[in-house]
Amino acid sequence: MTRLNGIFTPIATPFRPDDTLDEVALRSNVTRWMTTSLHGLVALGSNGEAAQLDEDESDRIIEIVRAAVPADRPLIAGTGRESTRATIAATRRAAAAGVDAALVRTPSFFKAQMTTDIFVRHFSEVADASPVPVLLYNVTAYTGVNLLPEAVERLSTHPNIVGMKESGSDIGQIAELVARTPDDFTVLAGSATTLVHALLAGCDGAILAVASLVPDACVEMMRLIGNGRLREARALQRRLMPIARSVGGTYGVPGLKAALDLIGYVGGPPRPPLRPVASSVIDIIQGQLDAIGALPAASADARALR
Amino acid sequence: MTRLNGIFTPIATPFRPDDTLDEVALRSNVTRWMTTSLHGLVALGSNGEAAQLDEDESDRIIEIVRAAVPADRPLIAGTGRESTRATIAATRRAAAAGVDAALVRTPSFFKAQMTTDIFVRHFSEVADASPVPVLLYNVTAYTGVNLLPEAVERLSTHPNIVGMKESGSDIGQIAELVARTPDDFTVLAGSATTLVHALLAGCDGAILAVASLVPDACVEMMRLIGNGRLREARALQRRLMPIARSVGGTYGVPGLKAALDLIGYVGGPPRPPLRPVASSVIDIIQGQLDAIGALPAASADARALR
Amino acid sequence: MTRLNGIFTPIATPFRPDDTLDEVALRSNVTRWMTTSLHGLVALGSNGEAAQLDEDESDRIIEIVRAAVPADRPLIAGTGRESTRATIAATRRAAAAGVDAALVRTPSFFKAQMTTDIFVRHFSEVADASPVPVLLYNVTAYTGVNLLPEAVERLSTHPNIVGMKESGSDIGQIAELVARTPDDFTVLAGSATTLVHALLAGCDGAILAVASLVPDACVEMMRLIGNGRLREARALQRRLMPIARSVGGTYGVPGLKAALDLIGYVGGPPRPPLRPVASSVIDIIQGQLDAIGALPAASADARALR
Amino acid sequence: MTRLNGIFTPIATPFRPDDTLDEVALRSNVTRWMTTSLHGLVALGSNGEAAQLDEDESDRIIEIVRAAVPADRPLIAGTGRESTRATIAATRRAAAAGVDAALVRTPSFFKAQMTTDIFVRHFSEVADASPVPVLLYNVTAYTGVNLLPEAVERLSTHPNIVGMKESGSDIGQIAELVARTPDDFTVLAGSATTLVHALLAGCDGAILAVASLVPDACVEMMRLIGNGRLREARALQRRLMPIARSVGGTYGVPGLKAALDLIGYVGGPPRPPLRPVASSVIDIIQGQLDAIGALPAASADARALR
Repeated sequence: MTRLNGIFTPIATPFRPDDTLDEVALRSNVTRWMTTSLHGLVALGSNGEAAQLDEDESDRIIEIVRAAVPADRPLIAGTGRESTRATIAATRRAAAAGVDAALVRTPSFFKAQMTTDIFVRHFSEVADASPVPVLLYNVTAYTGVNLLPEAVERLSTHPNIVGMKESGSDIGQIAELVARTPDDFTVLAGSATTLVHALLAGCDGAILAVASLVPDACVEMMRLIGNGRLREARALQRRLMPIARSVGGTYGVPGLKAALDLIGYVGGPPRPPLRPVASSVIDIIQGQLDAIGALPAASADARALR
Repeated sequence: MTRLNGIFTPIATPFRPDDTLDEVALRSNVTRWMTTSLHGLVALGSNGEAAQLDEDESDRIIEIVRAAVPADRPLIAGTGRESTRATIAATRRAAAAGVDAALVRTPSFFKAQMTTDIFVRHFSEVADASPVPVLLYNVTAYTGVNLLPEAVERLSTHPNIVGMKESGSDIGQIAELVARTPDDFTVLAGSATTLVHALLAGCDGAILAVASLVPDACVEMMRLIGNGRLREARALQRRLMPIARSVGGTYGVPGLKAALDLIGYVGGPPRPPLRPVASSVIDIIQGQLDAIGALPAASADARALR
Repeated sequence: MTRLNGIFTPIATPFRPDDTLDEVALRSNVTRWMTTSLHGLVALGSNGEAAQLDEDESDRIIEIVRAAVPADRPLIAGTGRESTRATIAATRRAAAAGVDAALVRTPSFFKAQMTTDIFVRHFSEVADASPVPVLLYNVTAYTGVNLLPEAVERLSTHPNIVGMKESGSDIGQIAELVARTPDDFTVLAGSATTLVHALLAGCDGAILAVASLVPDACVEMMRLIGNGRLREARALQRRLMPIARSVGGTYGVPGLKAALDLIGYVGGPPRPPLRPVASSVIDIIQGQLDAIGALPAASADARALR
Repeated sequence: MTRLNGIFTPIATPFRPDDTLDEVALRSNVTRWMTTSLHGLVALGSNGEAAQLDEDESDRIIEIVRAAVPADRPLIAGTGRESTRATIAATRRAAAAGVDAALVRTPSFFKAQMTTDIFVRHFSEVADASPVPVLLYNVTAYTGVNLLPEAVERLSTHPNIVGMKESGSDIGQIAELVARTPDDFTVLAGSATTLVHALLAGCDGAILAVASLVPDACVEMMRLIGNGRLREARALQRRLMPIARSVGGTYGVPGLKAALDLIGYVGGPPRPPLRPVASSVIDIIQGQLDAIGALPAASADARALR
């Protein structure tokens, strides 16, 4: 099995009340995730608010996370920037800091110009220059551009491009990505609300925000699909649905951070312009976490007593 | 009349073949624009490839342009970033370098979270912290989010928010922006293909890529509308249409840079992942420039001889 | 001036409580509209719920309306169907019943196939077979397809295609339609919320639901634009905006029918699946009608007494 | 197993060169489909060009098809119209003509008004009045409206609404439909390009244009999924993909009719405004049919000889 197959989570970036990086919290969160069955971690993903971080903060985060993730657990870092040049620079710095692979988001500012040819040249030049393997990253909901299967097929022959994360929930597109790339090209899903379908379509794993909250359930899903236990997998998918919707879409990063706080990790405030969710939303998320047994005992008890 | 009313152009950022800033070219371009009837310049706009520039490059560009723009010609600089914190930092640096106003693009990465309330808090905090007046900047085609008239109405009461640039071509929305903001709130259009309609809807000026190529024609358009000479204004609009479409939409920044090269400014290559337009596109653009008399004599002659 | 230039209204179709055509109400409504300054009427438009009528009902409506509209006031009838064959049949029946022109909506069911070539052939065949002049009708909000300026330009040379109604509010597209068609090709606007801009862009008139409620104000708008009184025209546009939004978009046909009831016409219930608006919406619409002086005195008094 | 579970095809409507119904061809096509393993047929579906047929033609088609389909093979007829009243009338006529169930497309003209509440009332009233079981029909690509899982959940408790056809390829939405409806509520897929995923998500069958061409392959797909033979099912899906794309989307009804002609059924011309596909498209479709062994021997031989 390819080293990057499996369930990853894109870790949140905790901030202190003054909006600076909370290094202690970051370290303790990572240490705790390392006690779960997660295959590995992604630093500086979309859910890590990478788009809102300075270059210095980005570098420091990789340094801290790498120190807390054992060498046998893969650490991926997001290194995409709008220019090819800045992407290469960030990728090289991440590689020097010891990441196992770079997850490179499509540039997207000039949407009309972001054709398949442009993407193929961009990712090829990044992969040529990168000291570590590259994963392509398509996240249309945030970027407004779509890295099409045709582009991925062409890029999948590059020796240093080893896979991709497809965050969309279009199972037809995911199936096509799987069909048009080599068997050892890792296709990771990014949408927890359609996880079972993405795995059935041939995905090799997933990078999921909800796996920060219920890592073992996500890993169990892969096992169920691998063993052909489709009925149980579908039942698990239904149980995960409410919390997956909350932190993956409806409430976004602020929702994910509230959920982390509820289960004893440090979420903390998101970076403005993002704002913490309202207390009514915290109640909703707490109920969803409770329903899947993700709340720590004390918290669930407190809720039962209300 | 408010100091920011009038026709501006968002200047291109010239790069050398090794993808570094071409300071000499930038300086010479600006010096030449200062010989036209343009009201002022915008540095680090979308067409300046601001999204693809490092912070150091951004600061250097402002420094160079400010030195070449006389104090009586307004210089605006784009200072929007994804986080409130980084936007404030960039705005302060630009103010310290002497710009007259900051043009602050909406943050947009977490699209689902970018509500009117979020925008109002973000822009208010930026304006609170900015030493210079702030212009809001809505450019949905690039960001995928829309700063609604309701948000602008609320923000227009902030003493340090003096206007906005609306890049869309939805004339109904533009008319609503004009109607819901004070008379001395400057509304600048950003779409050259609907310029005459935006001015008729009450815009106080425009920030136009095509004004880098035919500044006097754009200034003339404002004069015609101001004098109620609608028929002539519409005729001028039709003449501008082909080149406006080319550099504003179809061919984007690479098209604008090719056009600059053709009329004797330094456009040069765009920064990758953007690539220069094909030679067939250069021919199209040359024909469009020729048709509106924007080609220098030598170049037009060469064309005629083919 | 071309005979079809001016302000028209697409008349509503009144139903009795048992969902059958209310012929008496239809006749009395038309008779009353004939006392206003409206240039003419459109029967079987979108707002006439034409899509929900049987062929027999459609024929009967034209018969009734024609009898109540004097020969010197133009009567247009909607005759578009999904097939070319049915469209031709409906157009011939309408012509035989005495309408002055046929307003032919784009077919739209098979959206992916509705290309410019398909549209040109369809409308050409309809116009070839029609005994009366044909107006093209583009209403993307309802059909999901767009009749592009290129198609209209090609069709505008057909001797029996004399104009079009463009219901969209994209002023750029409207300006292009005007620019690419002959001077005697009538371009009618369909969006009241951007009426002033459409007229400034060169439209020769409009077909407006709101003109059923405030016909004289709409006719006044044309006069103001014709006389270059732009400031007053914009002020009038702003006054019309709330009711234009309500009956043109937000509340649709049920809102229009409620408004008709409020000003003493017979609106009556819409045909299911449409349902009457809630009473809270009636209050909103009443307030909007009151604000522009469209309520009859008794009704406005009653409101003032509450 | 519920009587409506299984693979159906929505039969094309053959026309003579003069655009009238070709009754002989219709009868012979149906007779031949009855020799395949298809579970049943759908008359007057989207692919049957129902939107372009007169009421008389529609009634006649049901009469002919019913006579040619044995009583033990289910015959479904499309009976959706834009008004509730016309839908009920068409459904009653179809029931009187002996269909086993009515497939009722969402009304869609007034898109903004087509809320869940409106849909629930419309379909409830149709089901109340229908002498035969009703299937809901959601086909967003043609209608521009979406019948949401919430609406379907509410409607699934109606005793005379026994299932639905969901034509979209959003597997998340399909999974939600399955999860939120009773076990004996039949959910049929409509998109052949994602058939394997729809069946894995819990669909009970499908109504597929491509099943007119390769009925046995579609039935085999259901059997493979039923037996947990996922790998083979995915391989079959990939083989079906090119022809499924051609007749389901790219070339639409004209493509389907060309394909029928190629395999010895009578496709014939589509009804205008639709036009026959170009000969270059026929070649493409022929190649796709050949590749899956769907061409009759003579035709395949002829191709091989070229």
